[in-house]
Amino acid sequence: MKKIVMAMLSLAVSAVSFAQENNYPADTKPASTNIVGQDYPRVDSQRRVYFRFRASGAQTVSVGLGNTPLTKGEDGFWTGVTKPEDPGFHYYTLKIDGVEVADPSSESFFGAGKMMSGMEIPEDGVDFYNIKNVPHGTVNSFWYFAKSTGEYRHAYIYTPPGYDQNTKQRYPVLYLQHGMGEDRRAWSTQGRANFILDNLIAEGKAKPMIIVMEDGGIAAGMGGGPRRPAGPRPQGQPGAPQGQAPRSPMGAPAGMVSFWDGFGKVMIADLIPTIDANYRTLSDREHRAIAGLSLGGTQTYGISQANLDKFSHIGIFSAPFGFPGVETGYNGLLQKPAEFAKLVKVFFVSMGSKEGPNSGRAIHEALDKAGVKNVYYEAPGTAHEFQTWRKSLYGYAQLLFQDK
Amino acid sequence: MKKIVMAMLSLAVSAVSFAQENNYPADTKPASTNIVGQDYPRVDSQRRVYFRFRASGAQTVSVGLGNTPLTKGEDGFWTGVTKPEDPGFHYYTLKIDGVEVADPSSESFFGAGKMMSGMEIPEDGVDFYNIKNVPHGTVNSFWYFAKSTGEYRHAYIYTPPGYDQNTKQRYPVLYLQHGMGEDRRAWSTQGRANFILDNLIAEGKAKPMIIVMEDGGIAAGMGGGPRRPAGPRPQGQPGAPQGQAPRSPMGAPAGMVSFWDGFGKVMIADLIPTIDANYRTLSDREHRAIAGLSLGGTQTYGISQANLDKFSHIGIFSAPFGFPGVETGYNGLLQKPAEFAKLVKVFFVSMGSKEGPNSGRAIHEALDKAGVKNVYYEAPGTAHEFQTWRKSLYGYAQLLFQDK
Repeated sequence: MKKIVMAMLSLAVSAVSFAQENNYPADTKPASTNIVGQDYPRVDSQRRVYFRFRASGAQTVSVGLGNTPLTKGEDGFWTGVTKPEDPGFHYYTLKIDGVEVADPSSESFFGAGKMMSGMEIPEDGVDFYNIKNVPHGTVNSFWYFAKSTGEYRHAYIYTPPGYDQNTKQRYPVLYLQHGMGEDRRAWSTQGRANFILDNLIAEGKAKPMIIVMEDGGIAAGMGGGPRRPAGPRPQGQPGAPQGQAPRSPMGAPAGMVSFWDGFGKVMIADLIPTIDANYRTLSDREHRAIAGLSLGGTQTYGISQANLDKFSHIGIFSAPFGFPGVETGYNGLLQKPAEFAKLVKVFFVSMGSKEGPNSGRAIHEALDKAGVKNVYYEAPGTAHEFQTWRKSLYGYAQLLFQDK
Repeated sequence: MKKIVMAMLSLAVSAVSFAQENNYPADTKPASTNIVGQDYPRVDSQRRVYFRFRASGAQTVSVGLGNTPLTKGEDGFWTGVTKPEDPGFHYYTLKIDGVEVADPSSESFFGAGKMMSGMEIPEDGVDFYNIKNVPHGTVNSFWYFAKSTGEYRHAYIYTPPGYDQNTKQRYPVLYLQHGMGEDRRAWSTQGRANFILDNLIAEGKAKPMIIVMEDGGIAAGMGGGPRRPAGPRPQGQPGAPQGQAPRSPMGAPAGMVSFWDGFGKVMIADLIPTIDANYRTLSDREHRAIAGLSLGGTQTYGISQANLDKFSHIGIFSAPFGFPGVETGYNGLLQKPAEFAKLVKVFFVSMGSKEGPNSGRAIHEALDKAGVKNVYYEAPGTAHEFQTWRKSLYGYAQLLFQDK
């Protein structure tokens, strides 16, 4: 016991002396993504991030945000400041003597196939994804056994405010997919999907709905490939890949088909029936939507095309792969716009303005040219990152299930 | 796009060559706490843990599990093996050139006031905390506004199997507290509280109940202290602190009172009323239990003693602080065992056999000596760690709400 008491006393002393020594850079606040109580990293009103990290024994320390090198002080602390960052959520790591690790001062978020640090940069005047004094839904950690694969699987399920009270009400469902290197956790933590819907529902801008967030199997490869994280990944704001959108078959390199194929089968055979059995859903296709970001958008193209009997609303956020082309796409229905529009109530395509056109704009233009009804959204000033996708969800959710 | 395709191709190549190069140590499996797809760290049947970690630029690398140094190979990989570990869940970090960080190959778990790596060591013949083919409850991520403190707070709520279907049924509630340096996440991830209850309920050994897991404010100090993580913490199996259990007032150093005081007020003023309003609870004291591990057990002593009108079942797991003493404890009721037993249906005290007696056994003996009815459990062969607390919950949950 003595040891614990001593540790607590020395904590109190060191905390006080730290506070006295420390002059925080002017105009800065601790990042909201910090571990509770951590003073660094800090963000200023120019959206620059200040780091101060103790690593007496290290030879070099840098931060993944803008590849910012830190400088060692005589006190053993490494400090540095990034350039102004885009608003929103950014993954980052620290590089200590060449080894990439999560920042012990930050909460961790599963991205790039591992636990990354996260940096939330506020955007002036934008708060639709913050928690507000409105009724809140809950996000349920939901386990089930998938017969088709013989494994226990784990999904996160958003149920809207009032779900537990209005026990006679049934709800439409949005299946919402994360990107490469992420999993079921991404949309409710990095993406704030629950707060976005809470706020929209409170304003009467979106219908109360259930959101299902499952592992798309693209965190570490799925469907027969080696079960290993997908190697080094971009961090910060990598911007979208450039180039021509491939058109055949399914619009992506053949090796990528398994990325949606495996999960698509599980979704149809196990996930949807399990959700319909365990939650009070409206289980017809008119009340089921799907959307995904980046490679989850690629999955969304593949799954929705193969299962138009299951989905009536389709959302593609920043997906440069997978658009099946207007010639043969969606079983030829893109050549019959009236018929397609009758089946697909909303076809939503989005990207960030800093991405290349194939992440969205070029697809939207191809659809327009073919006379296919679609909704296009471009997030101003952001790249291939969650601020783009939060705003995409904000727009898409308002269009869902509105014609019933 | 070319960049992504190239990255994926190079991933495929490197994954194959890795698999060819690699001869896994005999009799080992990847730890279940690894990131999906990570082959290291690996555990053998002797409960030794094998590490293999790439850090070409580092000068020294060691692992917190048993302070095991790793050795650098010519390929830039650091390798090493721990001594046999106790079964169960252990926190650990890597130390790279003197800097303690989470292992990028492991999932992260909030402990010691930061994101730590976790190592799950199987225990032969023990599976009560594993997921099984039984009906599963869900763990809800639940946000609410606490009027007494003017802040949004975040709790995890376990609802038992059938909760969503049996909409007329009301349930008893267990308030279950984590330890120092942890938060609401600990019991359902490190502790597996949800699987423990799913399995007990399926066997008819525990009553279906709701479990509320909130932040006790002891992750980073609470109630007026500096909002900073509580400095360096033991990892692995530190064993329980030794020494005399203090007896006055509230049984812990005065500076610690705020650790439960702040949260105790929130629990009574906000949390319990909010849970009773949002979940189908049985809201009388006969159907409300409390328990906590380590400093959460200390909180449990304090909160239950001050609010005997709210709780009828009390569980103290490995708490060397806070026992109020039989002379004056529980408002003198420990001197009136018959009266106390009428109010407190279960008084449960537990610890791991590798802990010092003041974590549980000495308190049990003091209660016995005073004629106070109590249940004592000692987990065989484990220390101040989650295997002890999983088994404590397993025992305690079976005793809850059984006389109604």
